[in-house]
Amino acid sequence: MQALPARTFTARVEGTYVAEGRAVESTPRDALILTYSGVAGDRHEGLVRHSGPREPWYPRGTPMRNERQVSILGLEELAEIAATLGIAHLDPAWIGANLCLSGVPDLTRLPPRTLLLFSSGVTLRIDGDNDPCRKSGAAIASHIPDLQFAFVKAARDKRGLVGWVEREGVIRPGDEVKIRTWRQTIP
Amino acid sequence: MQALPARTFTARVEGTYVAEGRAVESTPRDALILTYSGVAGDRHEGLVRHSGPREPWYPRGTPMRNERQVSILGLEELAEIAATLGIAHLDPAWIGANLCLSGVPDLTRLPPRTLLLFSSGVTLRIDGDNDPCRKSGAAIASHIPDLQFAFVKAARDKRGLVGWVEREGVIRPGDEVKIRTWRQTIP
Repeated sequence: MQALPARTFTARVEGTYVAEGRAVESTPRDALILTYSGVAGDRHEGLVRHSGPREPWYPRGTPMRNERQVSILGLEELAEIAATLGIAHLDPAWIGANLCLSGVPDLTRLPPRTLLLFSSGVTLRIDGDNDPCRKSGAAIASHIPDLQFAFVKAARDKRGLVGWVEREGVIRPGDEVKIRTWRQTIP
Repeated sequence: MQALPARTFTARVEGTYVAEGRAVESTPRDALILTYSGVAGDRHEGLVRHSGPREPWYPRGTPMRNERQVSILGLEELAEIAATLGIAHLDPAWIGANLCLSGVPDLTRLPPRTLLLFSSGVTLRIDGDNDPCRKSGAAIASHIPDLQFAFVKAARDKRGLVGWVEREGVIRPGDEVKIRTWRQTIP
């Protein structure tokens, strides 16, 4: 059995966003208010959510606890996706980010259970990596046409993380984040 | 980058237990009632818990969401620990199990985010492996003297999993469990 030790990283909050209404896109905000239900005012807010196509093992619409409260993107990975697509800039708001962080090049590869400890006292616990879906591809294409399917391919393993609120509070751009992974055993 | 594919296993519920009061030990029950708050009547029940020595990054007693609602042990791993300790039997109730499962030899090594889909409709989502602490060693030693420290060593990577309730319902001995891990990327 192989075991990887716990690791720590330091990152910085570059942007905070709330997705209002039913659209994929989010809107920049000066701060995020986080409760055990998630991001206040965001379409993904809730202790419980209804299952969708990501959970084919449940009938569509089954109530389940919401492990996907917050969407977290990496500035470096967004730049990589943009370079692959041949565009100058990929705005985290276009694909519904709540947080954009800098300082962790392979953010999406941080393992499930990873802790994001924000300088304000908020903690997010990572459920895992996000999948680049066609909806986010379509949202991109509304800004730069014809990129829908190219985005899904280019964003593979760079689409960021989802997680839930372990400690409540407020997050603002400029806040520092200590990131802590756990010891991993590999089969 | 290395990637491990998603895997599936089938297991069976061998026993269900509730830890009442403040002791480590749990008591066998005919069924467990699971809500989003955890195991009804168990000392670990709650949407929120207070931090302890497992979270040295928080002041002791800090409110945090409870990701440790349910303790899950593997029958095969318990037998391995008992063999190492030279005892005939290690009762899952002695160390506070809520569930004992059979059919997955390396249960403790299932990664964070793994889903346990019970035939009754309940789902548990795994936070991660449990650490063999001195408290559980002391609980063992109350049944078979002098095993406190030996247990902590023998139970390393065999102490089972902790997780939380994704779908509510009832679990009974004899229920089948479909286990699903996620695709993992290894740094």
